Amino acid sequence: MNNSIPTDIPHWTALVAEKKQRQSESIPHEWVVTPPSDSTLDVSAFPETCGLLNPREIEITNTSVDVLLEKLACAAWSAVDVTTAFYKRAIVAHQLVNCLTEIFVDRALARAAELDDYLKNTGKVVGPLHGLPISLKDQLCIKGLETTIGYASWIGQYADKNAVLVDILIECGAVPFVRTNVPQTLAWPESFNYVFGRTTNPYNRSLTSGGSSGGEGALVALKGSPLGVGGDLAGSIRIPSAFCSLYALRPSYGRVPCYGTRNTLDGQDSILPVLGPMTNSVIGVKVFMKAVLNAKPWLYDPLVVRKKWDEDEYNLVDHGSGKNMCFAIMWDDGVVVPHPPIRRSLEITKAALLKAGHKVVDWKPVKHKTLGDIAVSTPCSVTIWNAGSTEEYMTTTSVTGEPIITTMELDIADAAVASFRPQNDGMSVYQLWQVQKLRQDIRKEYLDHWKATVSETGTGRPVDAIICPAAPFAATPHGKNRYLDYTAVWNALDYPAAVFPVTTVDSTLDRKARPHAFHNDIDKDIYEMYDPEKFKNAPVCLQLVGRTLEEEAVIRMTEIADAALLAAK
Amino acid sequence: MNNSIPTDIPHWTALVAEKKQRQSESIPHEWVVTPPSDSTLDVSAFPETCGLLNPREIEITNTSVDVLLEKLACAAWSAVDVTTAFYKRAIVAHQLVNCLTEIFVDRALARAAELDDYLKNTGKVVGPLHGLPISLKDQLCIKGLETTIGYASWIGQYADKNAVLVDILIECGAVPFVRTNVPQTLAWPESFNYVFGRTTNPYNRSLTSGGSSGGEGALVALKGSPLGVGGDLAGSIRIPSAFCSLYALRPSYGRVPCYGTRNTLDGQDSILPVLGPMTNSVIGVKVFMKAVLNAKPWLYDPLVVRKKWDEDEYNLVDHGSGKNMCFAIMWDDGVVVPHPPIRRSLEITKAALLKAGHKVVDWKPVKHKTLGDIAVSTPCSVTIWNAGSTEEYMTTTSVTGEPIITTMELDIADAAVASFRPQNDGMSVYQLWQVQKLRQDIRKEYLDHWKATVSETGTGRPVDAIICPAAPFAATPHGKNRYLDYTAVWNALDYPAAVFPVTTVDSTLDRKARPHAFHNDIDKDIYEMYDPEKFKNAPVCLQLVGRTLEEEAVIRMTEIADAALLAAK
Repeated sequence: MNNSIPTDIPHWTALVAEKKQRQSESIPHEWVVTPPSDSTLDVSAFPETCGLLNPREIEITNTSVDVLLEKLACAAWSAVDVTTAFYKRAIVAHQLVNCLTEIFVDRALARAAELDDYLKNTGKVVGPLHGLPISLKDQLCIKGLETTIGYASWIGQYADKNAVLVDILIECGAVPFVRTNVPQTLAWPESFNYVFGRTTNPYNRSLTSGGSSGGEGALVALKGSPLGVGGDLAGSIRIPSAFCSLYALRPSYGRVPCYGTRNTLDGQDSILPVLGPMTNSVIGVKVFMKAVLNAKPWLYDPLVVRKKWDEDEYNLVDHGSGKNMCFAIMWDDGVVVPHPPIRRSLEITKAALLKAGHKVVDWKPVKHKTLGDIAVSTPCSVTIWNAGSTEEYMTTTSVTGEPIITTMELDIADAAVASFRPQNDGMSVYQLWQVQKLRQDIRKEYLDHWKATVSETGTGRPVDAIICPAAPFAATPHGKNRYLDYTAVWNALDYPAAVFPVTTVDSTLDRKARPHAFHNDIDKDIYEMYDPEKFKNAPVCLQLVGRTLEEEAVIRMTEIADAALLAAK
Repeated sequence: MNNSIPTDIPHWTALVAEKKQRQSESIPHEWVVTPPSDSTLDVSAFPETCGLLNPREIEITNTSVDVLLEKLACAAWSAVDVTTAFYKRAIVAHQLVNCLTEIFVDRALARAAELDDYLKNTGKVVGPLHGLPISLKDQLCIKGLETTIGYASWIGQYADKNAVLVDILIECGAVPFVRTNVPQTLAWPESFNYVFGRTTNPYNRSLTSGGSSGGEGALVALKGSPLGVGGDLAGSIRIPSAFCSLYALRPSYGRVPCYGTRNTLDGQDSILPVLGPMTNSVIGVKVFMKAVLNAKPWLYDPLVVRKKWDEDEYNLVDHGSGKNMCFAIMWDDGVVVPHPPIRRSLEITKAALLKAGHKVVDWKPVKHKTLGDIAVSTPCSVTIWNAGSTEEYMTTTSVTGEPIITTMELDIADAAVASFRPQNDGMSVYQLWQVQKLRQDIRKEYLDHWKATVSETGTGRPVDAIICPAAPFAATPHGKNRYLDYTAVWNALDYPAAVFPVTTVDSTLDRKARPHAFHNDIDKDIYEMYDPEKFKNAPVCLQLVGRTLEEEAVIRMTEIADAALLAAK
């Protein structure tokens, strides 16, 4: 990374204007469309009706990852054609929901052409992802490109090498082809920054697409990419995936290489950021994880666990081979009661699993409030992340004087309500260690709690997986996504968690409930926020959670839940 | 852990006096011997000549772990007899070198009797360690016992449960039978504290047995235990093992469960403490690791990696199946030049490996000084450990007002020279994150450096393992062990490292070398410390280092190096 700072720094607004100009110029003129007016909230059908994509390109972009790879491997579809199709659809998506940051068409097509040549000349694929276009969250460095994570202050800093994961994806034959929007600092569950602006939700543009991988969420939902890579520190893969109806995985620490990314809270070694796939099918999640793990990423990233893709674990050797399993549903984390559509999605899933012959019990959450408080959620308290975050944000932005964003609201007057930005600094390292120690103690308590469920499953095993909300709400209006703990607790515990779609908000089925006995003020605020009309057309997804480093089993169990939902429809 | 503090705290010296009295009373009268006078430096032969042990007990205590387990499993030797034999020898050892802390004969013998009954009644062993007495460093909590890690302030705090590893060892059939001495705070490479006093080296009592697992080192060397468990944050397993001529392993983070131990710098999540075996044969190391990993420790400790004992990795699938390997020798870390006996041990090992048909190249160390500085070694600098250590030590000792020990010297007048205790506090958490980030960058650089050695090995693989000193000296006079970086760098990199014995200081072969061009003042001081007479009879051991989570391969490669040394004798 080139960190040299020019002695005469232009004002940050000038940097932004110049960057925006360059971004605009990177879009081929012939791919510019006339998007529907802002009053059209649901734009999900637009890419197929706008006329830019021909029928074959529509077919290609509607194809799931596994079939795409088959077609590419037998040269039925060329990498150039597939990349072109997704690029066109991505550019359309961008004009609808503002999801892209870096656009580099020529470079991606040149790479695709190389792959086509290789296949033609050798009869062999380069690797398991041969020809697959992959979109990347704006934190995965690509040599020669900027990676700003929404900081104007980082405009003009060009990477001198690829992130490790980018190298591995290229080695696997993939075609990195766009990068996608995030919030400034990455530390928000929505996606707005001064450089690239705000990403909106394709199912209802008055709603957020989530964050911090909100650009990925919106892009993959519009099928502008078959597979995206997001990053997750507190829910940043799962929140946008849930808000945009995707399949996704937040792997455990050290399964997917993170080295060479730009990050927030860089250097904190306690609750680690992870990267993972966001896509339109659970098979896409599997294909990505298997390819990355088989590339022996521990040889390239010192934090990656030396643990191959384990086919036995995928075949659920530790979970009764997938027969007669016992799932536990967490209806409520004891802090914020989920909105009616979320509750309904849990009921749908429970019924589907029962119908498929599995057992379902209730999950009792243990100390979720404390876990959330330790990690991130309470403003002005001592947490692992806010221990040094303010100093980091100040240091980074002081280079150009750009303001630190304090709200994701459209109207800044609502900032005081909307902001959950960590604000507290100044604890000693020793004090931080005490917080970290408390967290390890709760991790132990949680592990023991899980193990003890063996007494209630009737399977001879503890609960096989937890199924729970990804958030207490579907995609919220902009600035209103204020509660992260349905995802953040699993980061604090380091449990792998997949996201899978279940339903969509339905104003008839999901009427506002009567007020319940509120757990606390946030619970009350979130209850009051609900209005089926406001959340119209918002997707509803859930999480499936396993124990640390059980990625293979979590993927297989998500396939099982997904199949059960399909069969029960 | 019962942390309630009495309102009327006795003076710490009164606490110590009372604890010492209790320790003395825990020794059976009939096992009290008359040890040689202090002027007898080498006491290694005393246990077999003192008359307390009968010939069968001498035979039992001279037997290696694998054979002990065979004899126990077929009831040729009872667990009670084996435990009694080792207990007697441990008590003799204690009277020679002051190596024990907690002594609980009745409890251990009752446990051994249970095991004998079980075997008699069922014809089966309880587990893979059936009947094996195991000694534990004074940080592994045992229910109902105190664990002071050398703090007078923690006298009277009785554990309400076992450490996870203790539970697992018991489940495997082991007999925990003594606990062993450490320095106050654990954060020293020698073993002195105000509660239990100082442990000395059985081969030369004017020398240290090392630390912080110095009690284990001395006890196992005297065969007062067939296998001990030490802890290692910067070399605390390897330094005493090297100083006392043992085989040992510092595993990677999260391979052996640490939960439920008392520790120094508790809650720091960056450079993690680990536990590992210290024993008299490399097979003992293997037996321990295999038993612990097969017990699925990740079900009991949230920080343990979900990774079984891997027989393929033990069989060196990634290292040419153990044929024609290439080892790299690090002669000097670029900071402190090793003393003549250490250099000679490297030459012996090189010759043996070459004779066994392997290739040997030189290892070029990368940024060892920076790695050491980041972790621990430089007083008054900003390091990961000293970031909160002073506040921790102050907080802990303030309960009783016991002094924080500032030197391991016999004569406190030498303290200024001897002390390397971290002294600096007060950096912000953000500043700590920058240090931690630098360390990750060096981990990446080191991984790439290792991978790049493929160009010089001629095997088609990078170097299979590094062989290097465990310290630049053999066991030093008390208070003089001032340089940890030959071990601490591998903690900072998280590389597994085994220790194996090579030779003994020989005043004829190991004459003082002429002064070299000193790297720095520490190098000069350590050069000047050397005098073959002073180090008389001190064992000389080396480390064999692999890459992260390669425990199985490191054990197998250590067997290969050990066999080569034996064959070359």
